[in-house]
Amino acid sequence: MSSESRERFASISPAEFFKRNPELVGFSNPARALYQSVRETLENSLDATDIHMILPSIKISIDRVEIEKEVYRLTVEDNGIGIPPHIVPNAFGKVLYSSKYTIRQTRGMYGLGVKAVLLYSQMYQDRPFEVQTSPKGSNRVYYFRLKIDISKNEPIIFHRSSIENPTGWHGTIITVYLVGDWLRSKQRIYEYIKRTYILSPYAEFVFRDPEGNVTYYPRVTNKLPKPPEEVKPHPYGVDIELLKYLIATLRYQYDVRGFLINEFQSIGDVTADEILKLAGLPPNKPASKLTDDEIARLVEVMKKYEKFRPPSADALSTLGEELITIGLNKVFSPELVAAETRKPKAYQGHPFIVEAGIAYGGSIQPAEFPTVLRYANKIPLVYDEKSDVIWKVVEEIDWRRYGIEENQFPLVVLVHLCSTKVPYKSAGKESIADVEEIEREIKFAIMSVARQLRLFLLEKRKQEEEKKRMLTYMKYIPELA
Amino acid sequence: MSSESRERFASISPAEFFKRNPELVGFSNPARALYQSVRETLENSLDATDIHMILPSIKISIDRVEIEKEVYRLTVEDNGIGIPPHIVPNAFGKVLYSSKYTIRQTRGMYGLGVKAVLLYSQMYQDRPFEVQTSPKGSNRVYYFRLKIDISKNEPIIFHRSSIENPTGWHGTIITVYLVGDWLRSKQRIYEYIKRTYILSPYAEFVFRDPEGNVTYYPRVTNKLPKPPEEVKPHPYGVDIELLKYLIATLRYQYDVRGFLINEFQSIGDVTADEILKLAGLPPNKPASKLTDDEIARLVEVMKKYEKFRPPSADALSTLGEELITIGLNKVFSPELVAAETRKPKAYQGHPFIVEAGIAYGGSIQPAEFPTVLRYANKIPLVYDEKSDVIWKVVEEIDWRRYGIEENQFPLVVLVHLCSTKVPYKSAGKESIADVEEIEREIKFAIMSVARQLRLFLLEKRKQEEEKKRMLTYMKYIPELA
Ligand SMILES: Nc1ncnc2c1ncn2[C@@H]1O[C@H](COP(=O)(O)OP(=O)(O)O)[C@@H](O)[C@H]1O
Ligand SMILES: Nc1ncnc2c1ncn2[C@@H]1O[C@H](COP(=O)(O)OP(=O)(O)O)[C@@H](O)[C@H]1O
Ligand SMILES: [Mg+2]
Ligand SMILES: [Mg+2]
Ligand SMILES: [Mg+2]
Repeated sequence: MSSESRERFASISPAEFFKRNPELVGFSNPARALYQSVRETLENSLDATDIHMILPSIKISIDRVEIEKEVYRLTVEDNGIGIPPHIVPNAFGKVLYSSKYTIRQTRGMYGLGVKAVLLYSQMYQDRPFEVQTSPKGSNRVYYFRLKIDISKNEPIIFHRSSIENPTGWHGTIITVYLVGDWLRSKQRIYEYIKRTYILSPYAEFVFRDPEGNVTYYPRVTNKLPKPPEEVKPHPYGVDIELLKYLIATLRYQYDVRGFLINEFQSIGDVTADEILKLAGLPPNKPASKLTDDEIARLVEVMKKYEKFRPPSADALSTLGEELITIGLNKVFSPELVAAETRKPKAYQGHPFIVEAGIAYGGSIQPAEFPTVLRYANKIPLVYDEKSDVIWKVVEEIDWRRYGIEENQFPLVVLVHLCSTKVPYKSAGKESIADVEEIEREIKFAIMSVARQLRLFLLEKRKQEEEKKRMLTYMKYIPELA
Repeated sequence: MSSESRERFASISPAEFFKRNPELVGFSNPARALYQSVRETLENSLDATDIHMILPSIKISIDRVEIEKEVYRLTVEDNGIGIPPHIVPNAFGKVLYSSKYTIRQTRGMYGLGVKAVLLYSQMYQDRPFEVQTSPKGSNRVYYFRLKIDISKNEPIIFHRSSIENPTGWHGTIITVYLVGDWLRSKQRIYEYIKRTYILSPYAEFVFRDPEGNVTYYPRVTNKLPKPPEEVKPHPYGVDIELLKYLIATLRYQYDVRGFLINEFQSIGDVTADEILKLAGLPPNKPASKLTDDEIARLVEVMKKYEKFRPPSADALSTLGEELITIGLNKVFSPELVAAETRKPKAYQGHPFIVEAGIAYGGSIQPAEFPTVLRYANKIPLVYDEKSDVIWKVVEEIDWRRYGIEENQFPLVVLVHLCSTKVPYKSAGKESIADVEEIEREIKFAIMSVARQLRLFLLEKRKQEEEKKRMLTYMKYIPELA
């Protein structure tokens, strides 16, 4: 038998793919898996609340349910919008199924997170996933137990039922069992919750850990940030395949001119005509009749045309300088807090905004390097710090220019990137890739808060000197007297 | 309309997923995309040759085909085993389709690489992918032009034909058009080819770049490393879902005892009986009749049982100390080369071997930090250096202990991880996750070659001192005479 005939070819489902490669989604070992499970479920709960103008109340608990084997039960309860019952099976049981494949800022974006939790859960223990949900406005509470059929990428439903909802409660409670390692994930989980809390001072959290410790994170403000709106694609973000997809799924029989005007941001009558002329296309040709070649030409012109307005920032939801200040003050009780929200920018057609905050002194312990709090779309990023573009920028800043003379400084630097498309380096959402446009904005944002720090330190030194002078002066008073 | 009713749910194909998130597979911008396309196609060519005992001869060329737009044509030709014609459409046109979903060491493993190239290619230009192949032993050459139907994750075939193959040629030639950025990827592409060459001195490469420069990398040896063999799963690597899958796809109606003995490594009669007893299972129960609960118990016992032989290293293919030495000498012309291939170890049931090499002095330029050459399954890793466990280990080594006193040292450290499952941090295959067992072996391997460096430096210094003494002595000779 010749060697090549031994090659065996196979196709696998996306569920099988991520089950085989759990490290690609942040599940490389039991400690990391427990941490990542908390993350993904908490992020879903937050997405189901704040962007729908609900003040989040979230309860997380982790219990150890077996002595022999390290099996934990993770329960996360939110007061969010809930999930329609006919959607539940796919939302939890089909990898690459999501309500977040739209152009607006959300924490989730891959349609993977909670399914990665289920895949991992199923690998080393037998209990199915449980979910209880009541969509906002529904008079019933729905209950499901399910697993994922990994080779088919489909939900397997073990149980479904519903009961009346007399209290008007809405939200979702999920329960998942998994093999974990609490001792080795404890610190990261606490850190993750704390950092989430810093950036959502309008939320309250209760966390009960497997040792029985209960921590309450009270709501600090009732002010919610402006929620993101869904927007149409910007022409700079278009590619041939996206254009084909948009045309294939059109609900109206537009001509190409109508298609451009109605399905994109930043294209009005005049711009549409200019673009079509540049691409050499007849304006009244039905969009669905465009040839491959014509589509390619259209994309080329849209990429190169220089007069589009920049992508709209309506799809973004920053925290804002006020809430950043509140969050940093609450958690660090520092001497100085400064925050800055930059103007919207764009990369590859995706709008983004960078915000930065700084906290100095007070109860912050001095250290050789500032504590860097990285965030993307309100998610704290805890692992893989050194491969993140935020870290790179903080490292390159010459802090002495901002009045920090000592080698040890009590400084926290917070950076938050908001975008309709965060360029994560991996689907575990732990570090942000080096995108030039983003890097530049991060630098400007940090420099701006750092300047406030410099003024503060100058002022402080002046006052200290004055005080010293005053003391020296006072010493001489008796003599003078 | 209440806000929640606006949630729109959708399911996307794996092709759509990776098209939307190209940065997850290494295609974050045109420069990176050109680099990654060279990589993925070259790695496929190498997998089609050396592991089938063919001395690789590979030609790569990149041409710029448009002046207005930066469109390049990448052509890669190999003398590998070729691809059966009925397989071609899926091999290139269906994401998550592969011949490498088996337990043996290969460069590819995700079933993604060349499809990621096509997805990117289709996004910004219109020409289809072309492939020409003749499977080893076939008397025809097959020719295809195709694209991927992204929403269906299926190939779209534009053209297929075949001609006679009178010369007995076998191999594959692929041609892909893509928007790239040669100037910003040039250095990395050359680096990548050079590093590949270091670790495959039994291959020859010809590279023609878009500027018309042709570089020939001649074969240095005809010695091929032992190829990897496909092996059965090791019980330590098993999980509930894998066990279910193995049972569902069994070709024989084994009882559970026969299943264990025939379908796993390291399980003989005695071990099978012990395991079944520990799991409380009747040995003659048909494997296909095991309940979920019984499967969960079996997995638990297999994970905990301590007497299995470690995973077999037959599935691995190291380069070996001799070939590492040849490669480093050829490329760096150093004063000293040392190499070490460690014994096989395992993590989570996956066998692995670490090899390290060191090159010192000669034509190596002194630098503040050693040049680190990272490899996994013979693939050089060029990006994301600082997030790799290999970098971490090199950084933690106290080089002064090995006789390096200066701050500037002319040193190259090469580390090669071979495994049936390399724990990459992302599907772009650029950095290796921190797995404790792997980290430890990397450390031992480097320490071992570093000790040879120390002896060499000691000897060198002794000789230098002797020479000095001799010179001093010589100075006095006339006086003595
Ligand atoms: N707690 C929750 N409340 C409301 N909807 C949820 C909740 N958890 C998950 N979902 C729904 O399930 C979908 C899939 O979630 P997930 O797999 O984490 O992917 P993603 O968050 O990236 O969309 C979400 O898009 C959302 O519509
Ligand atoms: N040059 C080649 N020669 C032979 N087979 C190839 C070649 N390129 C691709 N293939 C086949 O196509 C399959 C898919 O390739 P790819 O998408 O890169 O994924 P992977 O390399 O991870 O399997 C490979 O598993 C291999 O069987
Ligand atoms: Mg999610
Ligand atoms: Mg990474
Ligand atoms: Mg490949």
